[in-house]
Amino acid sequence: MHIDQLETPVAIVDLDRLEANIARFQAYLDEHGIANRPHIKTHKIPAIAHMQVDGGAVGITCQKLGEAEIMADAGITDIFLPYNLLGASKLERLVALTRRVNMSVTADSEVVVQGLSQAMAQAGLELPVLVECDTGGGRCGVQSPEEAAALAKLIDRLPGLHFGGFMTYPNSPQLDPFIQEAKKLLDGLPVERVSGGSTPFMWQAHTHKELTEHRAGMYIYGDRYTLKSGALQLDDVAMHVIATVVSRPTATRGILDSGSKTLSSDLLGLDGHGYILEYPQAKIVGLSEEHGNVDFSACDSAPAIGERVTIIPNHCCVVTNLFNEIVGVRNNTVELTWPVACRGALQ
Amino acid sequence: MHIDQLETPVAIVDLDRLEANIARFQAYLDEHGIANRPHIKTHKIPAIAHMQVDGGAVGITCQKLGEAEIMADAGITDIFLPYNLLGASKLERLVALTRRVNMSVTADSEVVVQGLSQAMAQAGLELPVLVECDTGGGRCGVQSPEEAAALAKLIDRLPGLHFGGFMTYPNSPQLDPFIQEAKKLLDGLPVERVSGGSTPFMWQAHTHKELTEHRAGMYIYGDRYTLKSGALQLDDVAMHVIATVVSRPTATRGILDSGSKTLSSDLLGLDGHGYILEYPQAKIVGLSEEHGNVDFSACDSAPAIGERVTIIPNHCCVVTNLFNEIVGVRNNTVELTWPVACRGALQ
Repeated sequence: MHIDQLETPVAIVDLDRLEANIARFQAYLDEHGIANRPHIKTHKIPAIAHMQVDGGAVGITCQKLGEAEIMADAGITDIFLPYNLLGASKLERLVALTRRVNMSVTADSEVVVQGLSQAMAQAGLELPVLVECDTGGGRCGVQSPEEAAALAKLIDRLPGLHFGGFMTYPNSPQLDPFIQEAKKLLDGLPVERVSGGSTPFMWQAHTHKELTEHRAGMYIYGDRYTLKSGALQLDDVAMHVIATVVSRPTATRGILDSGSKTLSSDLLGLDGHGYILEYPQAKIVGLSEEHGNVDFSACDSAPAIGERVTIIPNHCCVVTNLFNEIVGVRNNTVELTWPVACRGALQ
Repeated sequence: MHIDQLETPVAIVDLDRLEANIARFQAYLDEHGIANRPHIKTHKIPAIAHMQVDGGAVGITCQKLGEAEIMADAGITDIFLPYNLLGASKLERLVALTRRVNMSVTADSEVVVQGLSQAMAQAGLELPVLVECDTGGGRCGVQSPEEAAALAKLIDRLPGLHFGGFMTYPNSPQLDPFIQEAKKLLDGLPVERVSGGSTPFMWQAHTHKELTEHRAGMYIYGDRYTLKSGALQLDDVAMHVIATVVSRPTATRGILDSGSKTLSSDLLGLDGHGYILEYPQAKIVGLSEEHGNVDFSACDSAPAIGERVTIIPNHCCVVTNLFNEIVGVRNNTVELTWPVACRGALQ
């Protein structure tokens, strides 16, 4: 089936580009001796996780237990979950996962570490726990090398746990000095992994001397945000949303059948809600749930009602999470359909 | 089960408030002789659609064929789809729906009307088509009463179609003059329905003399946007997201296990990404996919790691679309779980 026969809105992934993106970044990390541990949040599809592992990744990164459970069910055997896990129910699920695959997690507080230790010791397991460090991201993470070292030592002391190293996001200029300072305070405790991440900074991973592992997500699909960062070029972008122009109320306004339920309202600092390949000067000025409002006034021409357009979304990960399935294409011909297996795995 | 035992993040709906919201707005519309045709985009759950119809609604509004198909399967018999439908595949599905339930749709162009006519005439059906009018919303819709009347007459002339009236969104001061002017140009063609909508303006529906039908969605749940509009009060809000504080990296920063995959990044002109009941002065300053970044600096105290908080999201409809299921509660006790049946019905 040609992609023109697909009903819109539909999210398609060019399989040639997907494969090329996976191979190119793996080759780069291999060249620099950095372990590749891609983040599956971007695709949420076990088959793509297997492509990444088969291509050389040491394992995958998931953000939620529900995602890890689905990936483990699909045969992925090494899963890093860089998230603070709390509460009896989540710890039980983590124990069950740790019994069947190589799990590792992060923590940034004693509360989280104590909970992990209790659950793992009771189950007779030993879980690698990395200390999450805030090296400028301003989200989770201990705030200083001193805190990092203290938490590392606590992890080392507590039953059921094993100090697994340091983790941060995104890679930043503070990464190396932070980790170097923390290492000095460890009294010889070995640091097995230093895990960094991000797609915009993916090609600078080797400039961080301390980094031993990199987590990227968006590098497989690309999006408008990745394009702006320069990490990928237009011809590398593998994910597109095909939409139909359903209304042309004025000479310059066009309405697409793709709104925030398709493209998400993520702006990520960008102007407008997507890039239309066929009308590069067009601007998606507004989204309601099922409508995309496009200003074609800067274009030489504007599409007719019924015309299909191809959109690069601002942020591919959240688009994945809005679709029940992704259509894999090669040379604009449909080759397969992947259910987005981890979609909505929020817990 | 008490709601404190639910894993987070979770979306809960207070059933007492849901029932009260449905009944109160129905009573208001009944009092003013306006037909109630709620928009199911907010809940996407057949059981709630049935509650609305059983409560007095004349039928429901869906935005996509996929939603209408699921609602028809669930026994809803009167469905308005105010969307321009284009293309052979979608028209076939519309024909199939029209054979089994009372369908009506909108159109705002000759292209759409011609397609509808061809499909319906060929199937031997007669479909009511309302003309969508842009009365200030700046989305779809004909731009003038003259265009509205011309399209109405075309619908009336074409086989397989029946002129069903006018539709607009949202209700605006231009609604009445626009419709009155269009009516004058109809040469006596009857206007069966004038369908308006919106939750923020729900209690002003009766001030529009021309309105015969109202489509509201958010009135059943409420959210931060609805609160700001004054259409609902804090104690009316039926939907909340329960989240857990998973990190407290600094004295004023707290990180929730709810990000844009839970709350969506919809701002709708609001400041911040949600209202935390237990910390009204807190501000959700940023969302990444799985993290909510909260500034507690304006609060007297800040939550401990592991504490649960109750959030009113900015926009309830998009939150619905992010969850696989919604938990119905009464007096903070779980009564039922509803799968979000129409979630991801994008086509």
